[in-house]
Amino acid sequence: MTSSIQQNTPVSLKNVVIDNGFWGARQANNREHTLPAIKHQMEITGRVDAWKLDWKPGQPHKPHIFWDSDNGKWIEAAAYSLMTHPDAELETYMDSVIDLIAAAQQPDGYLNIFFTAVEPQNKFKNLRDWHEFYDAGHLVEGAVAYYEATGKRKLLDVMCRYIDTIDANFGPKEGQKRGYDGHPEAELALVKLYHATGEQRYLDLSKYFIDERGQQPLYFDQEAIARGEDPKQYWAKTYRYCQAHIPVREQDMATGHSVRAAYLYSGMADIAAETGDEALKKACMSIWDDLNEHHLYITGGLGPAHANEGFTVPYDLPNETAYAETCAAIALVFWAWRMFKLDPDSKYIDTMERALYNNVLSGVSHEGSHFFYANPLAAFPNVTPHGQWSGIVGDRDYRRSEWFDCACCPPNLARLVASLGGYIYSTDTDTLYVHLYASNHAEVEVNSRAVKISQQTDYPWAGQIRLGVDVDQAGRFRLGLRIPGWCRAYTLKVNGEALTTAATKGYVLIDREWKSGDEIILSLEMPVERVLPHPLIRHDAGNIALQRGPVVYCIEEADNGNNLANVIIPQDARMITTFEPDLFDGVSVINVEAQRSTTDWKGGLYQPESAQHLTRVPTAIKAIPYCFWANREPGEMRVWIREN
Amino acid sequence: MTSSIQQNTPVSLKNVVIDNGFWGARQANNREHTLPAIKHQMEITGRVDAWKLDWKPGQPHKPHIFWDSDNGKWIEAAAYSLMTHPDAELETYMDSVIDLIAAAQQPDGYLNIFFTAVEPQNKFKNLRDWHEFYDAGHLVEGAVAYYEATGKRKLLDVMCRYIDTIDANFGPKEGQKRGYDGHPEAELALVKLYHATGEQRYLDLSKYFIDERGQQPLYFDQEAIARGEDPKQYWAKTYRYCQAHIPVREQDMATGHSVRAAYLYSGMADIAAETGDEALKKACMSIWDDLNEHHLYITGGLGPAHANEGFTVPYDLPNETAYAETCAAIALVFWAWRMFKLDPDSKYIDTMERALYNNVLSGVSHEGSHFFYANPLAAFPNVTPHGQWSGIVGDRDYRRSEWFDCACCPPNLARLVASLGGYIYSTDTDTLYVHLYASNHAEVEVNSRAVKISQQTDYPWAGQIRLGVDVDQAGRFRLGLRIPGWCRAYTLKVNGEALTTAATKGYVLIDREWKSGDEIILSLEMPVERVLPHPLIRHDAGNIALQRGPVVYCIEEADNGNNLANVIIPQDARMITTFEPDLFDGVSVINVEAQRSTTDWKGGLYQPESAQHLTRVPTAIKAIPYCFWANREPGEMRVWIREN
Repeated sequence: MTSSIQQNTPVSLKNVVIDNGFWGARQANNREHTLPAIKHQMEITGRVDAWKLDWKPGQPHKPHIFWDSDNGKWIEAAAYSLMTHPDAELETYMDSVIDLIAAAQQPDGYLNIFFTAVEPQNKFKNLRDWHEFYDAGHLVEGAVAYYEATGKRKLLDVMCRYIDTIDANFGPKEGQKRGYDGHPEAELALVKLYHATGEQRYLDLSKYFIDERGQQPLYFDQEAIARGEDPKQYWAKTYRYCQAHIPVREQDMATGHSVRAAYLYSGMADIAAETGDEALKKACMSIWDDLNEHHLYITGGLGPAHANEGFTVPYDLPNETAYAETCAAIALVFWAWRMFKLDPDSKYIDTMERALYNNVLSGVSHEGSHFFYANPLAAFPNVTPHGQWSGIVGDRDYRRSEWFDCACCPPNLARLVASLGGYIYSTDTDTLYVHLYASNHAEVEVNSRAVKISQQTDYPWAGQIRLGVDVDQAGRFRLGLRIPGWCRAYTLKVNGEALTTAATKGYVLIDREWKSGDEIILSLEMPVERVLPHPLIRHDAGNIALQRGPVVYCIEEADNGNNLANVIIPQDARMITTFEPDLFDGVSVINVEAQRSTTDWKGGLYQPESAQHLTRVPTAIKAIPYCFWANREPGEMRVWIREN
Repeated sequence: MTSSIQQNTPVSLKNVVIDNGFWGARQANNREHTLPAIKHQMEITGRVDAWKLDWKPGQPHKPHIFWDSDNGKWIEAAAYSLMTHPDAELETYMDSVIDLIAAAQQPDGYLNIFFTAVEPQNKFKNLRDWHEFYDAGHLVEGAVAYYEATGKRKLLDVMCRYIDTIDANFGPKEGQKRGYDGHPEAELALVKLYHATGEQRYLDLSKYFIDERGQQPLYFDQEAIARGEDPKQYWAKTYRYCQAHIPVREQDMATGHSVRAAYLYSGMADIAAETGDEALKKACMSIWDDLNEHHLYITGGLGPAHANEGFTVPYDLPNETAYAETCAAIALVFWAWRMFKLDPDSKYIDTMERALYNNVLSGVSHEGSHFFYANPLAAFPNVTPHGQWSGIVGDRDYRRSEWFDCACCPPNLARLVASLGGYIYSTDTDTLYVHLYASNHAEVEVNSRAVKISQQTDYPWAGQIRLGVDVDQAGRFRLGLRIPGWCRAYTLKVNGEALTTAATKGYVLIDREWKSGDEIILSLEMPVERVLPHPLIRHDAGNIALQRGPVVYCIEEADNGNNLANVIIPQDARMITTFEPDLFDGVSVINVEAQRSTTDWKGGLYQPESAQHLTRVPTAIKAIPYCFWANREPGEMRVWIREN
């Protein structure tokens, strides 16, 4: 038995059934509403029929270069759902989609809707902008998931063949192009394909993409010249946009397009974990620290700027104009999970949990069929009741959309929610780690021993988690329970007996002989926290946020009226948490004895302070979980609330 | 002699010489640096040679549809300068430019660079988007000014001929198009042309443009259909953008592109004043109130949004992303001046003065040859020392530019500064009004009597103004001295004797027999005011601004270090005004005994408040006039400063 936390292996979501509770409801919603809504949109927008490759100019539904990836993520989401909730009808339907995809594969193995049906002459001509490997990567992820869910190899074989084609064309050998994708994604997908097939060449190809990225001479320059373009005319102005400005091992800052970034960093972490590459691990850790120290919203959102859908400068975290793309927070979950494998420390899971409970879930409506692309931390509608602009950029009413032309977020969200069971547990040789708390029962193997573990909890609304252990035969192994970073006091009992073991890197390691019926009760104190922003975040200066457990709260006009900039939560404000069973099928809200800055305002927009009578009146304010905002009448919203 | 304030007539800038002081320095700078810089840019960008109409595809300097207007404003600026500061070399040069323009006029009177040299087939095809009347209007303004400055009619005659061509083609008669320009400007220019020539048809054409605007069927719709376009595909989505969504007399809100708006409203005020049209006057007053009550920055800036370069919804006044185009504040000066004529009340001059001393002058560097298009009220550079983004939208270093592709602002600013003398005085039958305070001497006619008036003052750095009256023969008339809206106490002495007359609509009317040597001393108390923002301006909640006299202040990194969001000016902070003779050739700065919120910050971006040690340390802060910001090392800037 080792004394420290080792590199470890996730427990497959196939072995984890989320029964009920918060994530049970989210997953049911995902199955019953989100997946059908995505299926409907995939069909009516032509994304399924596009595989027939029969689009002709002038016809509707011109295929887009991203459509393969939408299919890939959708198949992956369906596959994860099938793993825990078999559905013959859904499986038959997905088989039919896979048949279409397989039939679309070209004799040489190539597989891409747009570059077969629309612009075959441009195949592999612009990896920088045109997402071919990104598309391939998502289809690979879908294929692997579908294979794992159903045992059916058809799509997996198709994708192996396509990847082999890419592998033949790209690489360091004579006659090969030294290319990699402007939108990283294939890197992490290829590691999955390696694990699913055991074929080393897929790992090697992923590593090649990682190694080659940003090397001189820059492939994107050469490729542009080959197209007859001036590389300096690159629309995004800098290869920082796609994290290809310097070799990845020299990178130490989160930069560029945030989804590309987090997918790349996930792939880097995968390769570092697979190969033990210390330079790559160091780069991952440096970038991780930069993200967490300088660029992360309290909601787990990342990439504040619309212009590049990505990162800007340290501490630049505007609220109302925050981009904070749903996909970026999802990609952060992937990256965080891989970082833990590389460097077992609960700080990664803390960030993962922050993203999950806040920015990720903000991406989908409570009823499950409408989606946000951007997830701002403050909202001010420009339509009624405040006024009607109808300006060039259109109305800003903060309602989620049924779909997007660039539809990356909805299926991304669906696949993450469907696979949430896969993020709860992991094991190393002698330890079973519990990372997330959610009612579930799971079957795992620790120390070559089959262990059944279960959780019952109202988390994140309450901090008590009851864990049950069931083993065929009593035996020794370690149980590692994560003490979340937000938690500042907890108690732990095993079979009623208090345990005071200190946490190691955020995990209390309970090393004992376990027998069936053992019960662990972990009670995490979960008061409302007044959270201060770092002093260098200028947008939040003078404000606080409310957080309880992993859940960040916001105030909405639906509960509190408008003009939320005048709400003040003094340092001594009383705050009471109440569970409201009828709100969003049950959430904990925070009732705050706050104040409103009011004034019997006289005159125009700007007045001498001495001429105005300023007062503060007590006001009851209700804060709701940020992830459920914008599910009622459109109106103002704020996460950061004035303290003075 | 009347008992109230009457509609009145400006005293021409030809009769007003600004001697020295604040505006003397600004005008000298304008003559010596701004006008030569504009001349240089006009030449090197091909805007002068473009009149030769010999541009061919593939050549550099392809003419732009705005270039005529750049020429018009530049000629106008030079003309105003010549009125008070004759300059034979400049006049000869401008004559040569005018020769080029005259030679470019087509046999049918048409005159436009782009639609003669580049796209003749598109002449008068898209008034909505292509600015032909806007171009004509600016050339008319230049022609009128040059005629008034030099007596030379060449350009005036050219423009009369072109306007006659427009007049023949557009109007209500059979066979005419019922058009008006998407970018208003010609409306106010035609009123100037009417006054310069005495030709009623120019006033009528202006009135026609005003009357027709927004009438059904909408001309822009018909024009689009005639081009084979679907009017619904209008790129700006709504004719609110160009204030043509409804007839102007039904408009009561500031809307759309802010420069278009303020030019239109200026033309409406002109026509209302010329014709006594009460419905038009009412619309002007309603829109004015809407602007001042809902849409005006404290700097006199207007139009917060980059997307439409214009207005959004009430109280939407973001600071860091403020557009607040230099041209919009300039256009507001024009409009305000016309509103006073329509409705004599110093509130219009208050707004005019706010725009002049703040947003307008922010548009030009202190040395005079660099310009801002947008004038934000808070700045946070994304380049060193805070970091380097080099994102898609480029570096944001808040340095003024030498020029712009769309170069509306520099010559607009030059013409306003050169003509400032024209905004100081006006007269009605028996009264001489003093609107602005600036060292100058002027010759005016009041009650058919020649009066010399002079001002000596350090305004806006000090509130004392010494006015001298000189008349050939003693005589009775009224002198109306404006008491600025910002001023809450003042004393007034005539020949040493205190006067306590109350102000009427912001003017103290001194009705007496004046003789040469009479001296008036007006002392406006000018303390630093802590200005509160309207409670509905969410961006400013919890902040104050500092204003002294008409001058709005800001704090800059060059004086105060970075992280200005942590600067707090408590309610009882001591503030001392100091004149710094060496800073920007002499400005009053405000030294504030402020505080900085500091913390021995531990941990990442977000921390429980209870875990941080927050303190406030006394800090000496120096505020400078906003109009002089961004003249030193690039860095942070804030107008609105935390109070708590």
